[in-house]
Amino acid sequence: MALTNPMPMGPWKITVYDQEYFQGRRMEFTACCQNIMECGMENVRSLKVECGAWVGYEHSSFCGQQFVLEKGDYPRFEAYSGSNSYRIERMISFRPICCAHHKDSRMTIYEMENMTGRQFELCDDYPSLQAMGWMNKEVGSMRVQSGAFVCYQYPGYRGHQYIMECDCHGGEFKCYREFGSHAQTPQIQSIRRIQH
Amino acid sequence: MALTNPMPMGPWKITVYDQEYFQGRRMEFTACCQNIMECGMENVRSLKVECGAWVGYEHSSFCGQQFVLEKGDYPRFEAYSGSNSYRIERMISFRPICCAHHKDSRMTIYEMENMTGRQFELCDDYPSLQAMGWMNKEVGSMRVQSGAFVCYQYPGYRGHQYIMECDCHGGEFKCYREFGSHAQTPQIQSIRRIQH
Repeated sequence: MALTNPMPMGPWKITVYDQEYFQGRRMEFTACCQNIMECGMENVRSLKVECGAWVGYEHSSFCGQQFVLEKGDYPRFEAYSGSNSYRIERMISFRPICCAHHKDSRMTIYEMENMTGRQFELCDDYPSLQAMGWMNKEVGSMRVQSGAFVCYQYPGYRGHQYIMECDCHGGEFKCYREFGSHAQTPQIQSIRRIQH
Repeated sequence: MALTNPMPMGPWKITVYDQEYFQGRRMEFTACCQNIMECGMENVRSLKVECGAWVGYEHSSFCGQQFVLEKGDYPRFEAYSGSNSYRIERMISFRPICCAHHKDSRMTIYEMENMTGRQFELCDDYPSLQAMGWMNKEVGSMRVQSGAFVCYQYPGYRGHQYIMECDCHGGEFKCYREFGSHAQTPQIQSIRRIQH
């Protein structure tokens, strides 16, 4: 039974429960979990992030819908899943976001695929890209130079989430299909940094 | 390319549609709407914020669930309502957030009601109050000195939203029942500024 994958000890800790409101079976993790069912837990129904930033996934092996988890209490599915449209009621795998402790987060978004077209450098939080002068509601490609970001389908940090880290894919996401296994369109309307 | 905010100080403009994906009957507003049904529209099913920041409400006369609306496209309910738990499928009234153009936003949160107990001054965005050193998952009271903020029930800008403006109640919110007509607990775990 593989409980956790080997990973350098970092300042990460998450406690998960198999019932809502921090009831039922309880397990603590300080590194990634590829399949909570292999730990004898059918699903995660509530959780507490004690330290660090994490990303949760709908399916095992870090696939499907993804959602950022920062320090705090998540008593029900509704507290950690995305927006209304996607009734995720599963969190089967999760992992720390290792580069979220970068002092400075910096990324560039591009209008077209393969880092072409108009571009815009981000180093802050943007609840509305359009309000900052980005003309369309889509992002063709992006490059994360340092740190980690979460991109959202809709303004105000709503809808599908895509976790973008400088450590993954060499920080390059050349088309929307590389944004995440669940990405079906290049629609991105808000972006923010992920920080410890 | 350097992008600048094309219109930092308003005016405000929102276009609402009575069908999803910007179909059906269409109306433009540049000021508040107390009851969309009095405009002959049964409900709002999609919308575009063209300028400024707005707040939408579940019921007429600015009551019920509230949610911040920043520049961008909201093709379905799921794009502008809150989290999964509250199946808001109505936006009956809405209004501009007039103080969102403050250059600096500043507020103080307090552990207890009536601005007592531990306090913490905010002038930035906080996806996790706990990560910033706020020990509990609740806020007893708050005072908005300048600008406007949106407070969320859960970390990462999820769950119930409470729009807090320096222009309302003299900026003072002495207990959770003053956070909004839908507030049922003082639970607040993330807070961010609202800006044009």
